[in-house]
Amino acid sequence: MEVGMEVENKQVIFKGYIERAPLETDMEVKAGNKITQLKVPKGSGAVLLKNLYLSCDPYMRARMREFYGSYLPPFVPGSPIEGLGISKVVDSDDPNFKPGDVVSGFVGWEEYSLLQKANQLRKFQQDDIPLSYHLGLLGMPGFTAYVGFYEVCSPKKGEFVFVSAAAGAVGQIVGQLAKLHGCYVVGSAGTNQKVDLLKNKLGFDEAFNYKEESDLDATLKRYFPEGIDIYFENVGGAMLDAVLLNMRVHGRVAVCGMVTLHSYYDPEGIHNLFALITKRIRMEGFLQSDYLHLFPQFVEQVSSYYKQGKIVYIEDMNEGLESSPAALAGLFTGKNIGKQVVRVARE
Amino acid sequence: MEVGMEVENKQVIFKGYIERAPLETDMEVKAGNKITQLKVPKGSGAVLLKNLYLSCDPYMRARMREFYGSYLPPFVPGSPIEGLGISKVVDSDDPNFKPGDVVSGFVGWEEYSLLQKANQLRKFQQDDIPLSYHLGLLGMPGFTAYVGFYEVCSPKKGEFVFVSAAAGAVGQIVGQLAKLHGCYVVGSAGTNQKVDLLKNKLGFDEAFNYKEESDLDATLKRYFPEGIDIYFENVGGAMLDAVLLNMRVHGRVAVCGMVTLHSYYDPEGIHNLFALITKRIRMEGFLQSDYLHLFPQFVEQVSSYYKQGKIVYIEDMNEGLESSPAALAGLFTGKNIGKQVVRVARE
Repeated sequence: MEVGMEVENKQVIFKGYIERAPLETDMEVKAGNKITQLKVPKGSGAVLLKNLYLSCDPYMRARMREFYGSYLPPFVPGSPIEGLGISKVVDSDDPNFKPGDVVSGFVGWEEYSLLQKANQLRKFQQDDIPLSYHLGLLGMPGFTAYVGFYEVCSPKKGEFVFVSAAAGAVGQIVGQLAKLHGCYVVGSAGTNQKVDLLKNKLGFDEAFNYKEESDLDATLKRYFPEGIDIYFENVGGAMLDAVLLNMRVHGRVAVCGMVTLHSYYDPEGIHNLFALITKRIRMEGFLQSDYLHLFPQFVEQVSSYYKQGKIVYIEDMNEGLESSPAALAGLFTGKNIGKQVVRVARE
Repeated sequence: MEVGMEVENKQVIFKGYIERAPLETDMEVKAGNKITQLKVPKGSGAVLLKNLYLSCDPYMRARMREFYGSYLPPFVPGSPIEGLGISKVVDSDDPNFKPGDVVSGFVGWEEYSLLQKANQLRKFQQDDIPLSYHLGLLGMPGFTAYVGFYEVCSPKKGEFVFVSAAAGAVGQIVGQLAKLHGCYVVGSAGTNQKVDLLKNKLGFDEAFNYKEESDLDATLKRYFPEGIDIYFENVGGAMLDAVLLNMRVHGRVAVCGMVTLHSYYDPEGIHNLFALITKRIRMEGFLQSDYLHLFPQFVEQVSSYYKQGKIVYIEDMNEGLESSPAALAGLFTGKNIGKQVVRVARE
């Protein structure tokens, strides 16, 4: 595709603010009404990207509510959804980027994104690791797993680790890092297919389908007769309440996500926080963005694990920008198996 | 009173297990039916104590339920309540203690306690600090405040600190330590008299009566327009939920007690835990008993503050063993002002 030519730029438009989990109908794919000239004005410092892969992540839901007090601003109704992506530079007026460079960073959910400032883009060298893995294993979710496990959970060899949403983008990596650290690891997921993956592909010691369990407290007592040292919390709600009853003294709960919550105000509530005192539990929320100084060592360590076959990685790839609203909504119903990405264009 | 004579030993008997907060009627004062001979059998290693002061503490409620998984075993129905006390040694077959020694430790709620083993007794030198203060300012509650504030809250000068149940045994000391550390400190309490004490005697920057506030979120926004860095949590429930909405990024919640809870299962639940993630909050339960290596430095520092007039201390003293059931029950309705103790006998 030649720089300077005009093209249609299909986009996924955010329709309006919601308080519940997103549905496919909260977004609209619009074609034909946007024309992009594939070049960047001189002196603008801008960068024009062709988007290859888009990342679907649970945190994006937070940007779909009209709330300005969080760490990222809300999406703008009528404008494209924004998220992490892998893109190729088409044209650049920024001396740090040249056409053909492969970058990751925040882009619009569209075929082409014009960034006025490229200062948050990260350029990387392609190697034998698939490009899209830089949205998961070697990207934000992998880094979330890495800092959450090593920095927040303070793990020790031999400890008992429980991971919820364990077949998801973050959970699958947490579980494998915990195994490599010498921990006993159990994961929960919402289908038997995912449970099978956890046990037979991802190397978890045990796994269970929480939808088939009527008493989560009893379930956890079955898998952790001696209790849980570390809970990597991805779901909130009833699972967290059951875990609190099964934590060991000086246990740690790394609070990464609460994907089951239907709103940021949890109407059911958490009822067993008294356990924090009797068991002296530390419960800590975290964001990977507070630990960016560790990103290079994370990439080095996890790439090395991957290349040595010590870590495997499961990705759920949707084809085409048109499929991205369903892909994002599917995160909140557990439709994805592994890290959800969307391929917008072939490299 | 001569060693070897027989005396009645009035006791406060625990009637049976409860799940709610204790009432006066859950205990019974029994006189006349226990005769103690005021001496210790040779070779027994035992110590006989005359109890001077008994401590009423919220944690004692946990021993009134039939639950064996906590850090202290439940009380035995039909036997005396047990708690921390200040006592004088009447007779001793333990070479470390001699008649006349003043000690603190776990004793029965009774006039005389025969301890088969004295290994948990702490002997101390009387000075110009009142004896009963060793149950509060220089005892377990003061130490709870000390380790909770310095070890769990990781305080920094200039931070915004909120203390609930601030006129209680622990809260009053936390607030004063925080002021001495250069923090801005607001306390909540349940009567205007307590609020007055917080502001005019204990040196809090601000204080409010939570019972007069209809919207705790709005109240906290009024007192902390820039948010809360440290919450010293003594009450649980609606206050904790409102605090979560007002924490600053990287805030810390030291979970010391949840005295408002009507049972260990909180039926109303905590609804705003999502804030743990967006604000990267660390919420940590703790027990002073995990930090006993710091006890000597605590006594030295807090005694010194007290003697220099940098810390004041409010004690609520009931007279007579007969008054102890009401004193303990009163903790859970907020009747006490400051640290609740019972004087069993004059020194």
